[in-house]
Amino acid sequence: MTFPAPLTGVVPPVCTPLTPDREVDVASLLALVDHLVAGGVHGLFVLGSTSETAYLTDRQRELVVTQTVRRAGGRLPVLAGAIDLTTPRVLDQVARVSAAGADAVVVTAPFYTRTHPAEIARHFRLVARSSPVPVIAYDIPAAVHSKLPSELVLELAAEGVLAGLKDSSGDLAGFRRVVTGARTLPQALDSARAGGTPMALTGFSVLTGSEALVDAALAMGADGAVPGLANVDPHGYVRLYRLHRAGDLDLARAEQERLCALLGMVGAGDPARMGGSSSALGAFKAALHLRGVIACPATAEPQVPLSPEETEGVGKFLAAAGLL
Amino acid sequence: MTFPAPLTGVVPPVCTPLTPDREVDVASLLALVDHLVAGGVHGLFVLGSTSETAYLTDRQRELVVTQTVRRAGGRLPVLAGAIDLTTPRVLDQVARVSAAGADAVVVTAPFYTRTHPAEIARHFRLVARSSPVPVIAYDIPAAVHSKLPSELVLELAAEGVLAGLKDSSGDLAGFRRVVTGARTLPQALDSARAGGTPMALTGFSVLTGSEALVDAALAMGADGAVPGLANVDPHGYVRLYRLHRAGDLDLARAEQERLCALLGMVGAGDPARMGGSSSALGAFKAALHLRGVIACPATAEPQVPLSPEETEGVGKFLAAAGLL
Amino acid sequence: MTFPAPLTGVVPPVCTPLTPDREVDVASLLALVDHLVAGGVHGLFVLGSTSETAYLTDRQRELVVTQTVRRAGGRLPVLAGAIDLTTPRVLDQVARVSAAGADAVVVTAPFYTRTHPAEIARHFRLVARSSPVPVIAYDIPAAVHSKLPSELVLELAAEGVLAGLKDSSGDLAGFRRVVTGARTLPQALDSARAGGTPMALTGFSVLTGSEALVDAALAMGADGAVPGLANVDPHGYVRLYRLHRAGDLDLARAEQERLCALLGMVGAGDPARMGGSSSALGAFKAALHLRGVIACPATAEPQVPLSPEETEGVGKFLAAAGLL
Amino acid sequence: MTFPAPLTGVVPPVCTPLTPDREVDVASLLALVDHLVAGGVHGLFVLGSTSETAYLTDRQRELVVTQTVRRAGGRLPVLAGAIDLTTPRVLDQVARVSAAGADAVVVTAPFYTRTHPAEIARHFRLVARSSPVPVIAYDIPAAVHSKLPSELVLELAAEGVLAGLKDSSGDLAGFRRVVTGARTLPQALDSARAGGTPMALTGFSVLTGSEALVDAALAMGADGAVPGLANVDPHGYVRLYRLHRAGDLDLARAEQERLCALLGMVGAGDPARMGGSSSALGAFKAALHLRGVIACPATAEPQVPLSPEETEGVGKFLAAAGLL
Repeated sequence: MTFPAPLTGVVPPVCTPLTPDREVDVASLLALVDHLVAGGVHGLFVLGSTSETAYLTDRQRELVVTQTVRRAGGRLPVLAGAIDLTTPRVLDQVARVSAAGADAVVVTAPFYTRTHPAEIARHFRLVARSSPVPVIAYDIPAAVHSKLPSELVLELAAEGVLAGLKDSSGDLAGFRRVVTGARTLPQALDSARAGGTPMALTGFSVLTGSEALVDAALAMGADGAVPGLANVDPHGYVRLYRLHRAGDLDLARAEQERLCALLGMVGAGDPARMGGSSSALGAFKAALHLRGVIACPATAEPQVPLSPEETEGVGKFLAAAGLL
Repeated sequence: MTFPAPLTGVVPPVCTPLTPDREVDVASLLALVDHLVAGGVHGLFVLGSTSETAYLTDRQRELVVTQTVRRAGGRLPVLAGAIDLTTPRVLDQVARVSAAGADAVVVTAPFYTRTHPAEIARHFRLVARSSPVPVIAYDIPAAVHSKLPSELVLELAAEGVLAGLKDSSGDLAGFRRVVTGARTLPQALDSARAGGTPMALTGFSVLTGSEALVDAALAMGADGAVPGLANVDPHGYVRLYRLHRAGDLDLARAEQERLCALLGMVGAGDPARMGGSSSALGAFKAALHLRGVIACPATAEPQVPLSPEETEGVGKFLAAAGLL
Repeated sequence: MTFPAPLTGVVPPVCTPLTPDREVDVASLLALVDHLVAGGVHGLFVLGSTSETAYLTDRQRELVVTQTVRRAGGRLPVLAGAIDLTTPRVLDQVARVSAAGADAVVVTAPFYTRTHPAEIARHFRLVARSSPVPVIAYDIPAAVHSKLPSELVLELAAEGVLAGLKDSSGDLAGFRRVVTGARTLPQALDSARAGGTPMALTGFSVLTGSEALVDAALAMGADGAVPGLANVDPHGYVRLYRLHRAGDLDLARAEQERLCALLGMVGAGDPARMGGSSSALGAFKAALHLRGVIACPATAEPQVPLSPEETEGVGKFLAAAGLL
Repeated sequence: MTFPAPLTGVVPPVCTPLTPDREVDVASLLALVDHLVAGGVHGLFVLGSTSETAYLTDRQRELVVTQTVRRAGGRLPVLAGAIDLTTPRVLDQVARVSAAGADAVVVTAPFYTRTHPAEIARHFRLVARSSPVPVIAYDIPAAVHSKLPSELVLELAAEGVLAGLKDSSGDLAGFRRVVTGARTLPQALDSARAGGTPMALTGFSVLTGSEALVDAALAMGADGAVPGLANVDPHGYVRLYRLHRAGDLDLARAEQERLCALLGMVGAGDPARMGGSSSALGAFKAALHLRGVIACPATAEPQVPLSPEETEGVGKFLAAAGLL
């Protein structure tokens, strides 16, 4: 499908259901897609951090994209992460996921290696030059250990290199600089296109990945959100988005606060036994399992599974939010 | 070949020569292998950080291993990095490089994702269980943003999970805890083997990756070193190693100081224009090019190339060290 | 004066004007106080980070408090930072600034030493036990290199240990957890008081230190803001606060965006020549000097002064914001 | 006394014994000084991190210097930390501790505030200009969150600003650059003095603070060591130093390894209950108490005390090292 410009609304980073032996559970993945579409979401983002893309083999990643694109059936755009260490490896991922049908790719700064802003800029320019689909920058310092400077994002947007930003940095002030700066971009893009930019951009999309700050981001002028928790409660985030668009700010805030309480589930796992990824992704999958959406709550290796008591704790969050 | 237990001596992390269009320059790679073997090194480590493994595609990685193993011809062991984000992806890399002939794999803690010591332990155990060749832990916090605890390394060594440690952490006190602790391991390993550990370990190898501290590491009892600078001056590091083994500590220190001065080349690139990787790897490749070993000093994208003046600076370090 | 519970509104962290030879310029300090009071602010926070408290001697700190309290004359509360490394030293600072007339003290977690959440909790409890005035927690990870956990802040608030939070962490999601959690505190405080807590708390004040996110913080339910930029434009922040309280959210956001543009001045100094503190505090003082409020823009040693060109850059920000 | 140039040997950072109600226990302090002098140490460093200087009030700091200087009686030099946030406050500390009799001051980079290398250089130059006694740089990134660049240390040494370096960074490669670079300093200092540098420097002292790497540092050419553990076992470190100077490197290494085993006591405290400072300083004081040197093992607030079981663990380390 034609990629919307700008992409707006709620675009969940889709969890990747696994079987007990850690293969992609395709039936559950399709059920999850149906659950999200029924919730009214505006796009799907597969192979993001919440999708456990860091743990999926290339074969599994390809399967996830193929199946999700087929099920989405052109009803809503499918973005796919092309997460790898540096430019040449990311380009391999871009080729693979775009061949599998992704409508856009989501790309981070290089990691593992020591980086420099000049190298990050070079990276995005090289990726965009070779990508057959629009490129969205993924700002996730907790994973890649560098922060995308607002000025660089705007510069790359104005050049037509980037079609959007998915901001999982937690830095709402920097996010605001991009949102505000992007308002003057259309003209910049017109002139860039006059110079022959190949990409058919007519808008730059600024999306927050901060589940607890979606109302604030929208109030600043963000185009949408990519909340991991929307796997568990897509209806809630879509409701929040619609309330905001309707100008009903008090109800939007109340909905956001309900979702913030639900988000408490990410702390379900004991930090003495496991890391934050095991706990948060384990909680999302436990919740999807408890809600009957997916068949098995397993997370990929080497993540530590939630205990039965911890899973029970997730259930309490669901109950308190009226989701059980 | 049978992997030595323990592996000792100088094991350079082999640079990956590239053509101007960033393909693996096989002829230069073979020339570099010959240069290192002629220098008397005791093993070759391909697909490490100095090899720009972060920038090589899977196809390129495989080519590097295949060619190096063939050229080494069983004269010395070839270790290969199996660098990827988490267990399932690392296992794919392990399968690929061991099929290509690597005698051992070198594996880091998971990265990109948030980790926990329990998850790191689980990761190494799972990798070792599936690897057809010995597994060496690669402690490189600058890349993976976690430090391998000495106690965990020793625990995994005693279990037979790890055949060695390549320590690029810069933390010589922690390194010493492993070196000292490993002295009591053989007994531990005997009992582990009695329980059926499949790996034919008879010794655990503790190797330092700190180019400037090889004499100190050897004095503490290290088995050897994996110095990136040994690409440029393998004879120097081999001389240092032999002087140390011969008990000629003053001459060993003098040789180390000569190499420390040569190491200054890693600062050749302007930090306002490029990151530390571009500068250090660019300098090593420029030096190999100036010494006539490789055909082209190109580094992989998105690294920033050294300028002609910066390359001249590298030449001065070579001249001062008597290498031009 | 009686400290308001909760403290609400705009409470600028007051810059400390210096003479060219780096003594406190009392006349300029009083002029700045007048400027802020005329701007309608609701309290004054001296000896915060923006006040260069890190650079002031104990004698200078005392002078600042004494003079500010006298000038404020009970018209608005004066909070004073009691910034030092650990509990015993902080207690000395608390004694000094409260004797000089401060209505409340603002205290960070311990720094320089390695800390632990249990030690941070112990620290605040000990400080509050000995402080003659209410204690406000100052969450500033960029300075103290630890983050106050939301749960700990709420726990200490419920115990009556803390009268408020000044959040300069940039973590708006954590801030929101405190804002939301604090709504249920009055009951907790009632029961704490029943147990004999000596402090006459009737409300817990949650204040943001993020200049660019005041509208968002207020929308979440924050009590007020402590924006360094309010030195330069107190009227702007007071207008923003009043617009928000009046429910005029679109105008509040427009005012916030005007202030965000003005905030760009913090980047006036060349990062190759100076650190972020030199640049930001230098810009605030240059702006106050250009606006005619203070006599000299000098910052304390060892900060690097802005160049004439950089000062001109500050002037452009003022002009663009209609402040020159 | 005249400060030695260069200062060499073992210079323990002297613990500060406290009474149960956290006042300086002067009798125990004097006993500790006697214990260290009897152990053969070459200097005393009070008010360092191991001295809990971060926790001592100005009054207590002054008392420690006065008493230690008096007891040392000119038999060995007394260095005193002048630890505070920035230049003006450090200058206050320098004035206070030099008036109390310190023979040299030990000064870190600024902290709490965000720093820049240019500001750090300015800081040391300003401090040295006003200090009546020689200034030794204290490189302790774990406390101040910046690392002193080797080049800057050498530059300041050549200018006569610094009389030495106390390196607690753990970065032995950087330490080596200073040791090696300092060999060419005397000439530089001669020319600096020709330009009128007031300080009577005739040598620059490079000291390691890494308890586990003293043999390695000496082998590189270090002048001496400042090991916290030397409070517990001064004889051991002095023996190590003498063995090294006598060229008996194998025995020196064996002594170092004995001390490394003893150093294990710093992990005595449960990391779930306390931070690294509470554990390490608690262990040193428990050991001094168990050895009968000081009257009470209390550490300053808000540090968490060791439990009886943890104290017993410290005793086992002493017993294993033959110190009980």
